[in-house]
Amino acid sequence: MQLLNPIDQIFLRLERRNQPMHVGGLQLFSLPAGAGPDYVRDLVARAREFDDVTPPFNRRLKYRFGQPFWVDDVSFDLEYHVRHLALPRPGAIRDLLALVSMLHGALLDRSRPMWEVYVIEGVVDDRFAIYSKFHHSMMDGISAMRILRRSLQDAPDARSMRVPWQLPATESEDAARRAGPLTDAWRTLQATTRQIAALPRAGQEIVHAWHDARSDDDFTSIAQAPASLLNCRVSGSRRFAAQSYSLTRIKRIAKAFDATVNDIVLAMCASALRAYLLEQNDLPDRPLVAMLPVSLHDDDSGTGNRVAMIFSSLATHIADPVERLAAIQRSVNHWKRRYRDMSPEQIMAFIAALSTPAGLNLLTGLAPRHQSFNVVISNVPGPRETLYFGDAEMQGMYPVSIVLDGQALNISLASYRDSLEFGLIACRRSLPSMQHLLTYLDDALDELEPADDAVAGDSVHGS
Amino acid sequence: MQLLNPIDQIFLRLERRNQPMHVGGLQLFSLPAGAGPDYVRDLVARAREFDDVTPPFNRRLKYRFGQPFWVDDVSFDLEYHVRHLALPRPGAIRDLLALVSMLHGALLDRSRPMWEVYVIEGVVDDRFAIYSKFHHSMMDGISAMRILRRSLQDAPDARSMRVPWQLPATESEDAARRAGPLTDAWRTLQATTRQIAALPRAGQEIVHAWHDARSDDDFTSIAQAPASLLNCRVSGSRRFAAQSYSLTRIKRIAKAFDATVNDIVLAMCASALRAYLLEQNDLPDRPLVAMLPVSLHDDDSGTGNRVAMIFSSLATHIADPVERLAAIQRSVNHWKRRYRDMSPEQIMAFIAALSTPAGLNLLTGLAPRHQSFNVVISNVPGPRETLYFGDAEMQGMYPVSIVLDGQALNISLASYRDSLEFGLIACRRSLPSMQHLLTYLDDALDELEPADDAVAGDSVHGS
Repeated sequence: MQLLNPIDQIFLRLERRNQPMHVGGLQLFSLPAGAGPDYVRDLVARAREFDDVTPPFNRRLKYRFGQPFWVDDVSFDLEYHVRHLALPRPGAIRDLLALVSMLHGALLDRSRPMWEVYVIEGVVDDRFAIYSKFHHSMMDGISAMRILRRSLQDAPDARSMRVPWQLPATESEDAARRAGPLTDAWRTLQATTRQIAALPRAGQEIVHAWHDARSDDDFTSIAQAPASLLNCRVSGSRRFAAQSYSLTRIKRIAKAFDATVNDIVLAMCASALRAYLLEQNDLPDRPLVAMLPVSLHDDDSGTGNRVAMIFSSLATHIADPVERLAAIQRSVNHWKRRYRDMSPEQIMAFIAALSTPAGLNLLTGLAPRHQSFNVVISNVPGPRETLYFGDAEMQGMYPVSIVLDGQALNISLASYRDSLEFGLIACRRSLPSMQHLLTYLDDALDELEPADDAVAGDSVHGS
Repeated sequence: MQLLNPIDQIFLRLERRNQPMHVGGLQLFSLPAGAGPDYVRDLVARAREFDDVTPPFNRRLKYRFGQPFWVDDVSFDLEYHVRHLALPRPGAIRDLLALVSMLHGALLDRSRPMWEVYVIEGVVDDRFAIYSKFHHSMMDGISAMRILRRSLQDAPDARSMRVPWQLPATESEDAARRAGPLTDAWRTLQATTRQIAALPRAGQEIVHAWHDARSDDDFTSIAQAPASLLNCRVSGSRRFAAQSYSLTRIKRIAKAFDATVNDIVLAMCASALRAYLLEQNDLPDRPLVAMLPVSLHDDDSGTGNRVAMIFSSLATHIADPVERLAAIQRSVNHWKRRYRDMSPEQIMAFIAALSTPAGLNLLTGLAPRHQSFNVVISNVPGPRETLYFGDAEMQGMYPVSIVLDGQALNISLASYRDSLEFGLIACRRSLPSMQHLLTYLDDALDELEPADDAVAGDSVHGS
């Protein structure tokens, strides 16, 4: 019996029927050569044999004295959590995305451990898919992706299959135990920041907190985000869209503009959002503002990465794609410079200010008066090498994040091998035909492509 | 813009994440001879061409001044409401039931008209299925089954397909208009009673209402229902089980015992519940009480059927099946006699007492102190003739009802051709392995079977 920490409690309190607070991931696999017609059914049966379920997967909520606790589920029912579905033939990707949209819109059962894994057979071109969902009070999106990653192997081997709900302890968990409490503090802050990154309308309040932590007035003046379709009340219905892009191609474009991969990603999103909002007759005069959690520098030592939030203009008021990219770069670099000027203690103080319960209550957007950003764009670095679930090769791995009142769209990316995997989740009612964004993302890359070579590297298309 | 009537408002207020208030139906069809691999996909496409959607299917909720109104949905999105799914191969019925269990556990989106229709391909033996769900504030279970019935045809004809969301007015609706207000009053009362039949823990309060309407003290003394697994708080997860039984067989058994079909149905349920609760080590000493909406006499004139509620002992304390049946018959006949002694006005007054907002508030079980019945068993007479959806022959049609706190199981039946189609819906957590009830229903019929002939008439088996 363990009391939920204040942050995790907030994810319970934030949840409403139009605003489920779970995160997910969609993984696409090739059937191994010679897989029989019962391959997926057998795989589900074998996965269900892993019934020695480890925390947090065996824990359910229980309220005592009005407080939420985690308790072991004595009626744990693995068959309920691990489900076997199929696509109608011929198993088009648009049908897969429609199914994930439907599944992601449904609330988890609070009487049980709040996670579900769906193994989906019949995806076109001899593939199958796994869609997983986890309540945000149980883990954040990045942890969810990390756990999915850990259930995969470096080499195909049917007999050494691993499943998310029964993983061995990792080396880094072992390392963290050895490194002691200081490391733990860093890890907690880092996790907190990542969680906050998913919260709505956080910007304005973050700036207030920031103001307490820093005395540089100029720094607090981020632009008020304009009103847009992206920032209305949401319905309970979702649309998920996913697409892969060649990282090689994006890197080549980045190099041509002396930009980072992240700059190009932002430029793609900016261009796509501009085109979509023009199509919907709703492009604001002022530029859209994106909130992005970023790694300030890579540091694989025990102290972990430093993660911060950047509020970048998407320069959607600029018609020319190259000028738009330049404006985005300036905006991002401004924030990066500011972060670099801060001492670790200042960053620590800033992040700590956000992680108090009072600060988090503000961050939840319970009474926000200001729209400080229009959309979250989150980029999670992922594995470069090919991974396998049992003997099935993973082709792609797309994050499925959270939509909130005031944040009708979330764009999350994960990298895998030579791909950047975009997962877009939106309120299906607020953002009609949101899947058009995929076409506009394509167009955006084409616009920035150096004239001499154009490469098509897409492997998944929209619903 | 139309204010919801008080009864329909109650179904909104009763709804919680563990207690969705929608009703549904599962229909099973044969693929017509020569159907190609795209038959179901084409069928879904054709169904989606019916986009001139009629009330109530085009109406969504809108709150003004704290009151719920029905308004036309100006962003109506037929693709959202009509969905295309598939079973994993080989499409076992248990997979179909698992899918319906999952779909029935998910809340409807309140931003949209509150109905969804799922066309499910890949059911074993060249079949497909349609699962439909409708919010109870939009229509009750019997209306839902009636509308599903009306979307079917008497003869196979691919070109004259009908869909529930765009039906022509019926003859009886036309007749009702001609017959005028008195008929309307009867129809309203009848509909009210049917709706009440789905409400939780209604018995004790019904008895109070009854007491006001009648002065016969003896009549009010129905047994207090015992505590049981069936009457705990429910989770948000569901288990659906369905099975068909030969009506000829049941009628032969009924004749052997000088009983009605309904008596045999109750005896089957009683026997199955007794066996299940014995298996779960939870059989109460006192007999379970079932609440059943019944037709007092068939009357196809303009005044409609008279529907009342019977609280029948299921005599689950009696081990012998024949003695148990006799006890059930006595209990049912007692109530039937009482109803028969009442004048139409007395029945009217009784029903009217239940249909006031205050009465309904009591019926909703917001503060119940007494468990007056353990389970609802509802039997809807259905069509005798073979029906078709387009050119596909319907094989079966199973009701999927509502589970509530305190009512973890609902047994609903519909008749079709020579079958009685049982649809059992339960909280999957409160009633582990609920699907065992299907086996026990089988056993119950075998127990009562006259010794000289045993017939196996089952066409659907449990998940």
